[in-house]
Amino acid sequence: MIIDCHGHYTTAPRSLESFRQKQIAGLKDAKLSPAKDSLVISDDEIREGIEGAQLRIQRERGTDMTIFSPRAGGMAHHIGNATTSALWSDICNELIHRVCTLYPKNFVGVCQLPQSPGVRPDNCIAELERCVNEYGFIGCNLNPDPSGGYWTEPPLTDKWWYPLYEKMVELDVPAMVHVSSSCNPAFHFTGAHYINGDTTAFMQFITADLFKDFPTLKFVIPHGGGAVPYHWGRYRGLAQDMGKPTLKEHLLNNVYFDTCVYHQAGIDLLTRVIPADNILFASEIVGAVKGIDPETGHYYDDTKRYLDAVNWLSAEEKAKIFDGNVRKVYPRFARAIASR
Amino acid sequence: MIIDCHGHYTTAPRSLESFRQKQIAGLKDAKLSPAKDSLVISDDEIREGIEGAQLRIQRERGTDMTIFSPRAGGMAHHIGNATTSALWSDICNELIHRVCTLYPKNFVGVCQLPQSPGVRPDNCIAELERCVNEYGFIGCNLNPDPSGGYWTEPPLTDKWWYPLYEKMVELDVPAMVHVSSSCNPAFHFTGAHYINGDTTAFMQFITADLFKDFPTLKFVIPHGGGAVPYHWGRYRGLAQDMGKPTLKEHLLNNVYFDTCVYHQAGIDLLTRVIPADNILFASEIVGAVKGIDPETGHYYDDTKRYLDAVNWLSAEEKAKIFDGNVRKVYPRFARAIASR
Repeated sequence: MIIDCHGHYTTAPRSLESFRQKQIAGLKDAKLSPAKDSLVISDDEIREGIEGAQLRIQRERGTDMTIFSPRAGGMAHHIGNATTSALWSDICNELIHRVCTLYPKNFVGVCQLPQSPGVRPDNCIAELERCVNEYGFIGCNLNPDPSGGYWTEPPLTDKWWYPLYEKMVELDVPAMVHVSSSCNPAFHFTGAHYINGDTTAFMQFITADLFKDFPTLKFVIPHGGGAVPYHWGRYRGLAQDMGKPTLKEHLLNNVYFDTCVYHQAGIDLLTRVIPADNILFASEIVGAVKGIDPETGHYYDDTKRYLDAVNWLSAEEKAKIFDGNVRKVYPRFARAIASR
Repeated sequence: MIIDCHGHYTTAPRSLESFRQKQIAGLKDAKLSPAKDSLVISDDEIREGIEGAQLRIQRERGTDMTIFSPRAGGMAHHIGNATTSALWSDICNELIHRVCTLYPKNFVGVCQLPQSPGVRPDNCIAELERCVNEYGFIGCNLNPDPSGGYWTEPPLTDKWWYPLYEKMVELDVPAMVHVSSSCNPAFHFTGAHYINGDTTAFMQFITADLFKDFPTLKFVIPHGGGAVPYHWGRYRGLAQDMGKPTLKEHLLNNVYFDTCVYHQAGIDLLTRVIPADNILFASEIVGAVKGIDPETGHYYDDTKRYLDAVNWLSAEEKAKIFDGNVRKVYPRFARAIASR
């Protein structure tokens, strides 16, 4: 099976965004706040968004399933407060559940969390439980910077996050570390903030001993791990200078990288440097980069093509990247698809 | 000639750091503020710090000259105000000048700027002029985030920075885009903040048309360009989706990358993806990573060794990376060494 571990619902009906705009307007004038049931989206509207985009691309590229979550840029945890994020997460996650129910052979759900700057992550536990237990979701997206580019939250290794990690361990679900849109003009969201978020999270993991406290906690760092594989020598050296174990011992039982790297040389480096056991196939379609690379004639984000061209990975290693590692990192994946 | 374009004075006498601590104490209690002339450093003390470290390493690795600037992490523009930074820059730059005067065959100077959060960069012009005209420095380090990890300054493409750029163009000096230490607990300084700063700056350059306004302005993005070469496909695709010219046309007459990437696979990628015309040799010694890589038996930061092992660059291309590109990007380099 070819499993893409990183897809967002970027093609939701426009009424979802209209609802969000009303919700934001309601922050200034409560009279404008929309009731949850004012958002009505039909199954046909969902089908229309999915079939011409994610589902078509799955077919064209030979992907079997996508681990699917709400639009990352849309989470925007910096807007409003915890109540704002709670309603917005509720709605977005429910839509993911509807997509997965309509297309049980194609999508498995991952939830966004109702994070809010300065609010303890404990407030995300109920939504995580709901999504896992009621919707059959298999993971969550965790935003290390709910401030949207000002990085006001404690590092991911801080005890601040531990109650959420305890629940993740209990439910046996991993988190993809994924920032959302940036309200900081310094950071372009998909070109700087996303990649910086990935790099930052990995370095946070190096400096502490989080996985001594949570030996089974698992994170996927998207976008090929930000800058990390390219600077693997720097990170190995920094860990060494700090007296930490090797990165393999220190982090690689718990931290995984996806393959959202949009050119051959990048995927070549990723697969040379990071053990195949720690790489999960992903393309993040329909995502940050939509065009066709004039140098190849193929979509930049057609990452399967780059992996297919790597000739130093064995068939067994490729099977791990495309399939086995997802089942290892997301233990609920097998259960979710078996029940369908 | 082998020219390392990125070295910091990380081995200054301890009295420099003591002075800085007194300066910081003086921010709370003016009585504790040290007079500039209370800092006395002898030539012998300078020699002691340099000869056993940078100079020894130059010899061991076969580097001829280093473009040398104050310790990047020490700039700490977030501490105090513009007056604090003015005195601190004055002192640090003067020390670089003394190193370059003591070792005219080994070091050429680049200055730190007296930036301060929220203070217009115009305030850096006098110090830049002084360092170039009086000390014979050939460039500056420009911090895109003087807040030290909260990114409160406008993007580097904003007109906010234009007066400084006008002076750089007039003086014919480039800037290395280099953040300083991080006072944000989310960001480890050399493992996250530095790399993020590089990635962020490049993405800022993509989104605007700065080099239409300043066709001869030049920037070096250190640490191998942060995440940029690894995600070159992403950046090409983002520029394309935005309707920008190709990155080569849009940025590569003005933006250069150094080779501070501390493993072979990273240098391989850099030299595969980025044209040789845009790569400048650098190792940032004595810098972020001090150890020996047990996988190779050599120092992680011995980047010349990685470049020597690249067999797809012609002798001409390697000569550009080790020498010619420095002369192109730093036009004052040739004048500086000719006068010695």
